[in-house]
Amino acid sequence: MTSDDNAIRLVGFDGDDTLWRSEDYYHAAQGDFERIVQNYVDLQDARTLERLYAVEMRNLALFGYGVKSMTLSMLEAAVEITEARISATDLHRIIALGKELLQHPVELLPGIREAVEAIAADHEIVLITKGDLFHQENKVRQSGLADLFHRIEIVSEKDASTYARVLAEFDLPASRFAMIGNSLRSDIAPVLELGGWGIYMPYHVTWAHETEAQVDDDAPRLRRVATPAELPEAVRSLVLPAAA
Amino acid sequence: MTSDDNAIRLVGFDGDDTLWRSEDYYHAAQGDFERIVQNYVDLQDARTLERLYAVEMRNLALFGYGVKSMTLSMLEAAVEITEARISATDLHRIIALGKELLQHPVELLPGIREAVEAIAADHEIVLITKGDLFHQENKVRQSGLADLFHRIEIVSEKDASTYARVLAEFDLPASRFAMIGNSLRSDIAPVLELGGWGIYMPYHVTWAHETEAQVDDDAPRLRRVATPAELPEAVRSLVLPAAA
Repeated sequence: MTSDDNAIRLVGFDGDDTLWRSEDYYHAAQGDFERIVQNYVDLQDARTLERLYAVEMRNLALFGYGVKSMTLSMLEAAVEITEARISATDLHRIIALGKELLQHPVELLPGIREAVEAIAADHEIVLITKGDLFHQENKVRQSGLADLFHRIEIVSEKDASTYARVLAEFDLPASRFAMIGNSLRSDIAPVLELGGWGIYMPYHVTWAHETEAQVDDDAPRLRRVATPAELPEAVRSLVLPAAA
Repeated sequence: MTSDDNAIRLVGFDGDDTLWRSEDYYHAAQGDFERIVQNYVDLQDARTLERLYAVEMRNLALFGYGVKSMTLSMLEAAVEITEARISATDLHRIIALGKELLQHPVELLPGIREAVEAIAADHEIVLITKGDLFHQENKVRQSGLADLFHRIEIVSEKDASTYARVLAEFDLPASRFAMIGNSLRSDIAPVLELGGWGIYMPYHVTWAHETEAQVDDDAPRLRRVATPAELPEAVRSLVLPAAA
């Protein structure tokens, strides 16, 4: 396949919720956060998770993504929501939630190893994941998938300029690149924008921030799959129209 | 110079306290931390900073380096030292110390721009800095030095395996590589171990963790300089003995 001038040569994979479970753990931690904070305030009034999300968004430009950023935002939100009535012991419990998040086991999505191996047999593959460098490195190591990837890129933001840099390092036009991921905002929209291909594999739960993207369902270089088992065929199906 | 088979071809620079001031800001934040905590405990008994350092070391394998890690450790240490008597308002002040650290201006050390430019005229240069990806990227951007470097590596740990990976990417033996930095532990010892050269430029204040290294003052491939102005000559002075 790689000898075809129009074929996909490089396939990128997202990490969190594409290769391994992640958002479930965040979600559970937020539930624990809610229960701690609700000992101090009335649930209806506090709109706890809405206010946490607002604090996270306010801090994003300063903290970036990842568990440590989320933990600091949870602490700050807890102080704000309780008007500083929360105890040091309960704030310490919130730190412990962050520590648990950093230690959860890396659990591959069912069928993903086989899908990655099948795609790696025909293409160069690269892992492109964002968030905390230290935590993501640990997860890549624990996943047992690291050796399959030609390159592992841990980046602070997944936007068009990040993908353009990666493609420049591979000396490849975007039309020969397909990105697989669960986030329209981070994995699909910026790659389509550059002229590349996107294979969208939604996860059953998605952080609100990652759903903020405008992608037409019928965008020409977009595919959608439901499970990892469909990924190899989806990659094979990506063909540029022959040049006129 | 680069045509000489024995000459240094690649020069690495550390970031924090080699290109720009950093530890001063951490130091000031720790002073503020001490003052907050000492409202709750007797100074002599608490050995505040000693206990903070112990918490940081305990968390290092989980958090990694960087401001967000330090902030979470400060919060945890404050709860421990005060036996959870510290108020939410004071814990929030500690979060604010972390936020200030993330926002301090990037202030180049005097003479460093000229030194980097002089060395870049004769060598490929690479910036190798550890810590939080997001914060380090911001500092590199603000430094105005990014365009001088052929490559910028933000890594989670600066040990021999990290340097070996960077050298493999440049397809270069360690004997053609010199690393410039203020940390014996992170910049000098692992590079000497691989057979490379180290140029040690101490900063007036060093985090205790970075002083934990065994390097002989008379190690054969080690140079020591006092100021950035001495760096270009120090690099020029590095010559391998001719092969017997």
